[in-house]
Amino acid sequence: MFFTDGKLQYPVRVEAPDPRFARMLQQAIGGVEGEIRVCLQYFFQGWAQRDPKYRDMLLSTATEEIAHIEMLSTAVALNLEGAPTSLQDEAVAQDPAMAAILGGMSAKHYLSAGLNAMPVDSDGVPFDSSHVYANGNLAADMYSNVVAESTGRVLATRLYNMTDDPGMKDMLAFLIARDDMHQQQWLAVIEELGGNEGVLPIPNSFPHDQQVQDFQHLYVDTRIGDDVMPLEGRFTSGPTLDGQGQFGIAPAEPVGDRPELPPVAPETFPQNEQLETPPATPTT
Amino acid sequence: MFFTDGKLQYPVRVEAPDPRFARMLQQAIGGVEGEIRVCLQYFFQGWAQRDPKYRDMLLSTATEEIAHIEMLSTAVALNLEGAPTSLQDEAVAQDPAMAAILGGMSAKHYLSAGLNAMPVDSDGVPFDSSHVYANGNLAADMYSNVVAESTGRVLATRLYNMTDDPGMKDMLAFLIARDDMHQQQWLAVIEELGGNEGVLPIPNSFPHDQQVQDFQHLYVDTRIGDDVMPLEGRFTSGPTLDGQGQFGIAPAEPVGDRPELPPVAPETFPQNEQLETPPATPTT
Amino acid sequence: MFFTDGKLQYPVRVEAPDPRFARMLQQAIGGVEGEIRVCLQYFFQGWAQRDPKYRDMLLSTATEEIAHIEMLSTAVALNLEGAPTSLQDEAVAQDPAMAAILGGMSAKHYLSAGLNAMPVDSDGVPFDSSHVYANGNLAADMYSNVVAESTGRVLATRLYNMTDDPGMKDMLAFLIARDDMHQQQWLAVIEELGGNEGVLPIPNSFPHDQQVQDFQHLYVDTRIGDDVMPLEGRFTSGPTLDGQGQFGIAPAEPVGDRPELPPVAPETFPQNEQLETPPATPTT
Amino acid sequence: MFFTDGKLQYPVRVEAPDPRFARMLQQAIGGVEGEIRVCLQYFFQGWAQRDPKYRDMLLSTATEEIAHIEMLSTAVALNLEGAPTSLQDEAVAQDPAMAAILGGMSAKHYLSAGLNAMPVDSDGVPFDSSHVYANGNLAADMYSNVVAESTGRVLATRLYNMTDDPGMKDMLAFLIARDDMHQQQWLAVIEELGGNEGVLPIPNSFPHDQQVQDFQHLYVDTRIGDDVMPLEGRFTSGPTLDGQGQFGIAPAEPVGDRPELPPVAPETFPQNEQLETPPATPTT
Amino acid sequence: MFFTDGKLQYPVRVEAPDPRFARMLQQAIGGVEGEIRVCLQYFFQGWAQRDPKYRDMLLSTATEEIAHIEMLSTAVALNLEGAPTSLQDEAVAQDPAMAAILGGMSAKHYLSAGLNAMPVDSDGVPFDSSHVYANGNLAADMYSNVVAESTGRVLATRLYNMTDDPGMKDMLAFLIARDDMHQQQWLAVIEELGGNEGVLPIPNSFPHDQQVQDFQHLYVDTRIGDDVMPLEGRFTSGPTLDGQGQFGIAPAEPVGDRPELPPVAPETFPQNEQLETPPATPTT
Amino acid sequence: MFFTDGKLQYPVRVEAPDPRFARMLQQAIGGVEGEIRVCLQYFFQGWAQRDPKYRDMLLSTATEEIAHIEMLSTAVALNLEGAPTSLQDEAVAQDPAMAAILGGMSAKHYLSAGLNAMPVDSDGVPFDSSHVYANGNLAADMYSNVVAESTGRVLATRLYNMTDDPGMKDMLAFLIARDDMHQQQWLAVIEELGGNEGVLPIPNSFPHDQQVQDFQHLYVDTRIGDDVMPLEGRFTSGPTLDGQGQFGIAPAEPVGDRPELPPVAPETFPQNEQLETPPATPTT
Repeated sequence: MFFTDGKLQYPVRVEAPDPRFARMLQQAIGGVEGEIRVCLQYFFQGWAQRDPKYRDMLLSTATEEIAHIEMLSTAVALNLEGAPTSLQDEAVAQDPAMAAILGGMSAKHYLSAGLNAMPVDSDGVPFDSSHVYANGNLAADMYSNVVAESTGRVLATRLYNMTDDPGMKDMLAFLIARDDMHQQQWLAVIEELGGNEGVLPIPNSFPHDQQVQDFQHLYVDTRIGDDVMPLEGRFTSGPTLDGQGQFGIAPAEPVGDRPELPPVAPETFPQNEQLETPPATPTT
Repeated sequence: MFFTDGKLQYPVRVEAPDPRFARMLQQAIGGVEGEIRVCLQYFFQGWAQRDPKYRDMLLSTATEEIAHIEMLSTAVALNLEGAPTSLQDEAVAQDPAMAAILGGMSAKHYLSAGLNAMPVDSDGVPFDSSHVYANGNLAADMYSNVVAESTGRVLATRLYNMTDDPGMKDMLAFLIARDDMHQQQWLAVIEELGGNEGVLPIPNSFPHDQQVQDFQHLYVDTRIGDDVMPLEGRFTSGPTLDGQGQFGIAPAEPVGDRPELPPVAPETFPQNEQLETPPATPTT
Repeated sequence: MFFTDGKLQYPVRVEAPDPRFARMLQQAIGGVEGEIRVCLQYFFQGWAQRDPKYRDMLLSTATEEIAHIEMLSTAVALNLEGAPTSLQDEAVAQDPAMAAILGGMSAKHYLSAGLNAMPVDSDGVPFDSSHVYANGNLAADMYSNVVAESTGRVLATRLYNMTDDPGMKDMLAFLIARDDMHQQQWLAVIEELGGNEGVLPIPNSFPHDQQVQDFQHLYVDTRIGDDVMPLEGRFTSGPTLDGQGQFGIAPAEPVGDRPELPPVAPETFPQNEQLETPPATPTT
Repeated sequence: MFFTDGKLQYPVRVEAPDPRFARMLQQAIGGVEGEIRVCLQYFFQGWAQRDPKYRDMLLSTATEEIAHIEMLSTAVALNLEGAPTSLQDEAVAQDPAMAAILGGMSAKHYLSAGLNAMPVDSDGVPFDSSHVYANGNLAADMYSNVVAESTGRVLATRLYNMTDDPGMKDMLAFLIARDDMHQQQWLAVIEELGGNEGVLPIPNSFPHDQQVQDFQHLYVDTRIGDDVMPLEGRFTSGPTLDGQGQFGIAPAEPVGDRPELPPVAPETFPQNEQLETPPATPTT
Repeated sequence: MFFTDGKLQYPVRVEAPDPRFARMLQQAIGGVEGEIRVCLQYFFQGWAQRDPKYRDMLLSTATEEIAHIEMLSTAVALNLEGAPTSLQDEAVAQDPAMAAILGGMSAKHYLSAGLNAMPVDSDGVPFDSSHVYANGNLAADMYSNVVAESTGRVLATRLYNMTDDPGMKDMLAFLIARDDMHQQQWLAVIEELGGNEGVLPIPNSFPHDQQVQDFQHLYVDTRIGDDVMPLEGRFTSGPTLDGQGQFGIAPAEPVGDRPELPPVAPETFPQNEQLETPPATPTT
Repeated sequence: MFFTDGKLQYPVRVEAPDPRFARMLQQAIGGVEGEIRVCLQYFFQGWAQRDPKYRDMLLSTATEEIAHIEMLSTAVALNLEGAPTSLQDEAVAQDPAMAAILGGMSAKHYLSAGLNAMPVDSDGVPFDSSHVYANGNLAADMYSNVVAESTGRVLATRLYNMTDDPGMKDMLAFLIARDDMHQQQWLAVIEELGGNEGVLPIPNSFPHDQQVQDFQHLYVDTRIGDDVMPLEGRFTSGPTLDGQGQFGIAPAEPVGDRPELPPVAPETFPQNEQLETPPATPTT
């Protein structure tokens, strides 16, 4: 069960409301790198988790993330105070700055939400929960969370750069700190699981010898041309990160041939011409 | 520019076509953990990449991924050979196994694609390119790729478990190997960038002292109740993974207060009752 | 802020796991009439609400709804215990009932979620938060909530009918009761606002005399033909529900004429033929 | 069958075309509270309706709604007359007002539609017919229609406020009047069905005694903290709106316990560590 | 304005209801090749059309298409009569055919629509109006309509093949005939516009000499390898279809070089390593 | 398999970067008429194609289209050089032109992509692969490709008109030329298949005499009213385009009657009132 105390996790202040910034903040609410996503992602991972320690950790942090959506929704509403709501009023008609604000704000903030936050991104695209990554493999889930917090923190730093409002900068500095912690939190679980050597390849429960051996540590180079530079990096030579082999590199070469598909089925109603037998391989 | 030789990267054979497996393979084509996603993701990361080494690496692997979509699309068409296309034909009406196959296959495979592959997932949901993670920060992008290959390899192992067809098992064993390599490839870049100490927190170019210090390494515990067990793990004590501090843990406590929103704007046309001043804080 | 105690609001038991029912339960999680929707809807309405009483009511119930998603996610995982994960194993191949179960379950439950719940509907379509109705007008929001709970309760009764598992029936009987309460809760607010006479037309803050008077209480009948029966009902005569007029009925008749659009703009690059002046009205 | 006379239901005039307003009008065409939605919603409800009176009423009004989409599409095309279609022409480059108009208009109106209306919302997000609520229960459907017309009328009043164009104000004053009528029309059906006492709880055909009695009229209060104000309202005491009980209120308390999920299935290929038995409940 | 007479354009009968066929029929309602799409497409093209003849033609046929959605929705409801609505009732438990039907039907038909049609495709994916092609160029629009009717007729023939029900076959035979007519109708407009010579290249109003001449009639062959067969067809030699040139063919060769992007902007917060100048071209 | 040489198919230069144009170019990348769509469409058609000539043609052109996405992605990044990334910096605050640019650019270009291209349209709506038309009938597929290239070329001409940048105009003049070639290429296949007489009606493999003869060449006129002008065109009289009949025209008249649906099923839990038998036809 869940409970609420009605208070903000961290103060949310706006000194100079800017409807354009309200729109940008939406990316942190309903964007694919936003807080609704991390919140639902940690919940669904937690509800699937059998280990009570990781279950508690996931659900506890998921619960914290609701408070982040709450903070950002509050910030959106505060930035929309006094937003222009008429195309023809004097301020908009005579002041290019106001006209620019009206052009840059989200029309839906006024039209559909009455100057409040919405569960959409900065372009008004609704959040779609296919972005909730929870596939039941703990290591895959932890890396999915690292991505959520990394893209989230990159977004928060860009929002921080976009504004000069001290209240907004303070709120974002808090969220940036939480994303720092959460990145390290999920990677700490990877470390508990043995780090690269322990978790790779994900899933580590699939019998290693059942995969095609020749291709498991080989960089396949699909580049062609006379002036291709050799690719050299940690990923082309030396031991693999799981310690189970050596990286290699080779030019791409097909092992298969042209595919042979079954003939067109008449009951799919192709054109009559498709029902005639084509030559097995094209010839001149 | 791009080129093709018309051949499969690896052989694709199906001994006993099964339309239900054709449908499941769609998840590896158009699912969020599928090959269209990784292909477009690496392309968009590559086209944005300024470092020629990483640009080449990304575009080269992106180009390989097209061949994986091609293999899977071929596998879908092969599994659809002889699929039932009538609800009332004798085989379906009298053989429960055939009836089950017709029920478990994708109707769209016949109705919309004429017994061929589609860029959709196993439920017929079209691929949506918001899943192409490419945010311009190299470390965030690399972790996004680790997720793509981890979820992709987990999916491939489950598909491997689902079938007994030797051709399909062989094809999947190849893809499982490639996903192994690619996981290690992206993590090798993280290692080139200095590993956890070098890349954390992502982005590492944001001035560290501008985030709220008190909260940057603190596990916030939102759990309540008499029987809550203490949470102890790598993420609650000891040095953080970037080596810049110590993990801590503390019960959740609001730093903020109840939010104070501006009054409802009359031009949003609320109900008249909303325009009356409510009490600043609820009282009994 | 938000907190959790790690416990289920109401017990969730499954005696005879059925993966097909797991799939159907998804509709109550990620369907448009599901619990993610009501949860987010009440949160966003609450975070926008200025009246502390309604704010508290909305946020308190939103917080309860997380527990419902938790219950349903648990129910899905329990129903997936022992689900078939191979097309060719003996049970599936020889037992038509098992084959039917495999055909009727969600492939993604195994392939993408490792036999756990997902934030999608019973067809695997992800929840899309455009269904979060929160437009800032209290009466419109309350009716949106009545719809959420009405469609939710209809769904729950159909799920109740679909299963004979006593544990599932008990869980659904609880959710059906909560949806009953919540329907009445939102309509009680309508009553607090004065019932139909008080809230209609929504928004009641728009000056009534600025709408086109002739059409505000008139049923426009677009039906034609010799055998059209007269329409008689509460909506064609008698006082309107807001007590401000009388219902009427009249056959549809255009007040406008054929629209006159501006000529095609050459810079939209139409076909050349479209740039020639067409006759103002078609003639023979 | 359906027929058309080629004329507008109500005149559509634009004196001063404004491409920004064209974009905002899109919300009333393809937004979730727009006319495509109501049109399709009434059609699908009507085509499912067995009672000829309600069937005729629904289909007749659905047919009227096509005319509303037609009016709005005409209004969009008229507002796009003379819209800027070049970033560098003199007017745009030298006149900040023109620049603001170009910034605030929909690029797709020019790029994809040749200065005409599209079935998208004001942010260019396409209409998605999951918003067509038609679940077969008459009362649920009627409330869904009340929501459609309430959110639609709120939107129309905001659009009315946004413009000073007399033609547009007149058109919107007509649509606002129709939304008034339609709100009352659907609530009139609720009254025909017996009002709150008759229709609640929806569906009223589910045996009342099969829901969990203790929770059916109880406001569950999930708020915690020392300074929580008591919640008092029509929804916490007094008779319920269906006359079948008394409202109550109680603090949230879990009836269930920590969920017990089945062990992780090895064939889902989790990490090896997940296959080890975790402790049944976390302990220190 | 629009009107209705309440009758079906063509009779809809079902002798042996089959819920699986109900699900397949959904593709013809809400699939991308379905009737909602053609209906909305012709409406939006018509509302944008300035030539009264084409406007009337488009709106008249759009109005006919509503009747097709109506027929199909009726057919869905008729096929759902007697559908199984319980996982455990005797028929389902003991009769593998019934079990297969329950597995193959759409759960949402029962759960969300009460055994009625929905505006979704055969996989329950909602129709999304980005498929309404109406770009303001008459020739492009006509070809979009040819596609709508061609894919629609292919779908209808496959549905015809799927069923043996005489009523359903009769209804589909009618729809197949209408799609025949409509294909020819839109191509007749192409002929009115001068056929291939008149309409190509679309748009024909763009000054022909402003496109890059060398590439306008050249098949660019991206195939490589020793065993590539020469490509010979109507599209590699002879006059182009607009009579303005000759087809040619040439192997793909880049005219451009490696792209030179601007340096990474520090305010995008990349990793620090990305801010160091990389070598202009990769070297060994 | 696929290969890359790392070079642009055609040079991409930008003299005066404009972030607003960057946003508009997105329509050509991720719009429904954009290059991702054509690329995936030709790939999926090619992977399904049995005739080696058409297979090679499709895959070869699909491979070319990747290079077009690459060019456009490069153009987007170049146009984003120097884009404003702060709401409050001096340039934005004091220069209305800069303010307009910030308002008209895509916030996501900065916030989510770090000033790089994304697989979304000009409104930030992600590409959705349901727009990949590949239904297995060659003629239907070819017309789908004509639409892709026609709408693509119309878009490219509008983008050409929107900019004065010589580099961008040159790049677009190249793409406009390729779209010209590709339109003619797909229509050349139609000609190889026999032109209108050969391909119509699509599919031409469905037995012609099984469709309802009376309606196959008849324009059904749904227009009513006293002042309806007669419709006369190539589509109302004369031979049909497939040479198999004569066009005709007739006013719409229902052949069917009011539909008779089965009674409401009690297990769908309608309102009790719906379970009472309604009159078979409405009477006064």
